[in-house]
Amino acid sequence: MNKFQDLYNKERIKIDKKIINVFKGRKPASLYEPAAYIMVNPGKRLRPFIVLACAKAVGGKFSDAYNAAVAAELLHNFTLVHDDIMDNADKRRGLLTLHKRYDLSTAILVGDSLLAIAYEYILKDISPKQKHVVGLFTRGLVEVCEGQSLDKVFETREHVTLEEYLEMIKKKTALLVEMCCSIGAHLGGGSKSQIKALESYGLNLGIAFQIQDDLLDITAQEAEFGKVIGGDLIEGKKTYLFLKALQKSEGQNKKKLMQVVLNKGIQPDEVSAYRQIYEDLGVLTDAGNEIEKYTAKSLKALKTIPDKKNRELLEWLAFSLIKRTK
Amino acid sequence: MNKFQDLYNKERIKIDKKIINVFKGRKPASLYEPAAYIMVNPGKRLRPFIVLACAKAVGGKFSDAYNAAVAAELLHNFTLVHDDIMDNADKRRGLLTLHKRYDLSTAILVGDSLLAIAYEYILKDISPKQKHVVGLFTRGLVEVCEGQSLDKVFETREHVTLEEYLEMIKKKTALLVEMCCSIGAHLGGGSKSQIKALESYGLNLGIAFQIQDDLLDITAQEAEFGKVIGGDLIEGKKTYLFLKALQKSEGQNKKKLMQVVLNKGIQPDEVSAYRQIYEDLGVLTDAGNEIEKYTAKSLKALKTIPDKKNRELLEWLAFSLIKRTK
Repeated sequence: MNKFQDLYNKERIKIDKKIINVFKGRKPASLYEPAAYIMVNPGKRLRPFIVLACAKAVGGKFSDAYNAAVAAELLHNFTLVHDDIMDNADKRRGLLTLHKRYDLSTAILVGDSLLAIAYEYILKDISPKQKHVVGLFTRGLVEVCEGQSLDKVFETREHVTLEEYLEMIKKKTALLVEMCCSIGAHLGGGSKSQIKALESYGLNLGIAFQIQDDLLDITAQEAEFGKVIGGDLIEGKKTYLFLKALQKSEGQNKKKLMQVVLNKGIQPDEVSAYRQIYEDLGVLTDAGNEIEKYTAKSLKALKTIPDKKNRELLEWLAFSLIKRTK
Repeated sequence: MNKFQDLYNKERIKIDKKIINVFKGRKPASLYEPAAYIMVNPGKRLRPFIVLACAKAVGGKFSDAYNAAVAAELLHNFTLVHDDIMDNADKRRGLLTLHKRYDLSTAILVGDSLLAIAYEYILKDISPKQKHVVGLFTRGLVEVCEGQSLDKVFETREHVTLEEYLEMIKKKTALLVEMCCSIGAHLGGGSKSQIKALESYGLNLGIAFQIQDDLLDITAQEAEFGKVIGGDLIEGKKTYLFLKALQKSEGQNKKKLMQVVLNKGIQPDEVSAYRQIYEDLGVLTDAGNEIEKYTAKSLKALKTIPDKKNRELLEWLAFSLIKRTK
């Protein structure tokens, strides 16, 4: 599988370079220095790579979609910057969040600008006939706002079902991955059925990715993860793990879990006790199974891409996401 | 001039109805109820009307541009919602601002959604050949973010020149009015020279409009204005009036004006004393002259529209903006 990792690494460097160029020569510095601070970093660049890989999967070239790939990363970072304000998060990828490093106004405005420039870039790659690609981008944006709104509502609501949670992460995370696939497939000149297959790949991969994110929050190594371990519990977030644990628990465990809801989070020194509850209830395994289920769905969707060589890269990507540690 | 006022009133009602429809059937309510709260109100609807009037001025129909008009109003309200957070403003058009009525997260997210839906609407009115209209819209968005960033920087910077102020309001306000004109003219099927003329009309009208806004902050009647009188002074904003006063003042007056900068604003009971300084220095008259100068420029640009009947509406609009009281 090493050749795919090499390709990913190579393209990630290219994307990084393009992102540096996004901010060159822009003024005022009060806006674009903080924007570059958050964008020019060793991020995974997963979404732009998916855009490129999907353009290729339908027989197109990476070069059909570089600007759209940059647009996808800008859109993603817009959501991170604004979400970090709403979550009052201190750190992101090991760095201070924008509103902590600068101030609230700067963070709001940088988020807005990243979105604005994202549109600049998505417009670069489309031909006059491809107006609908801007429509796909806009739909992704609308969905991600709706998903984030649900996420905030769930924070203060006492009862949230696993189904509601899945609907929320679909909107907040998975539909943006679907969008990346769809845009890449459109720009690569894919057929309707190819586009549909890749959209399904993206949607299911996105759900798997988010559940994996919930799992890593408690199982990752802090230095590697770049965030505080157990942060979701500390903030009282209703993640897959938490809702599944609540569903399975009884007696003392249920009481302890309900305290997270009522107290809107726990203290950092309580994280290990809650991790033990998760382990006792088997929800870490449940999450792993769920991740595999959605990954399998995404791989199944790929089967309609006839050329094996074209789908290999996306297959590798899905497998490596299951194995990620950050 | 009454027939133009009647037309404006009629179109304003139509725009209001279209805006109500924007939010019908959208979920979740946690996002779209606050969005409708801020959008469904007795606003001036000036920007959408300018889009329509410019479509007509080049020989097009209002119906060429209704969705773009709604998009312009959504974009404008996106800026208001986020600006109100950054300014920590309590009221807007006599209503509580979103972050006061709801919370910070809701206000950030509603702003983001209004922008997202603005793109939905701008995409509705364009043909495949009009991709550049989305580009104009995006350029307007980028400029308004840059202008707002400058505005925030100027708040804490001790020295700001009148030229820097004009550059800031050009980006923050005037280029969005220019954008409305340009989009309306494009959608109405205007020629290159017509589009250029209407862009110049919009740019200069936008500058006049913003200086008028600065002037109304101190001269308006609170009940009609919907905001606290002297709010700019209370917040220590470096408006046209303030910078012009600083430029013209000496001795005791200069000292008092510099106190506004050093103390980052004044107390509400000091507003009338500062108004007196403005009057003594003649800066209310200066602002009036400046407004007339830019309005004259905007009217001059209109002269290249050959059909008198088509430009009458825009002429009336420019005149009535000079006379506005809120």
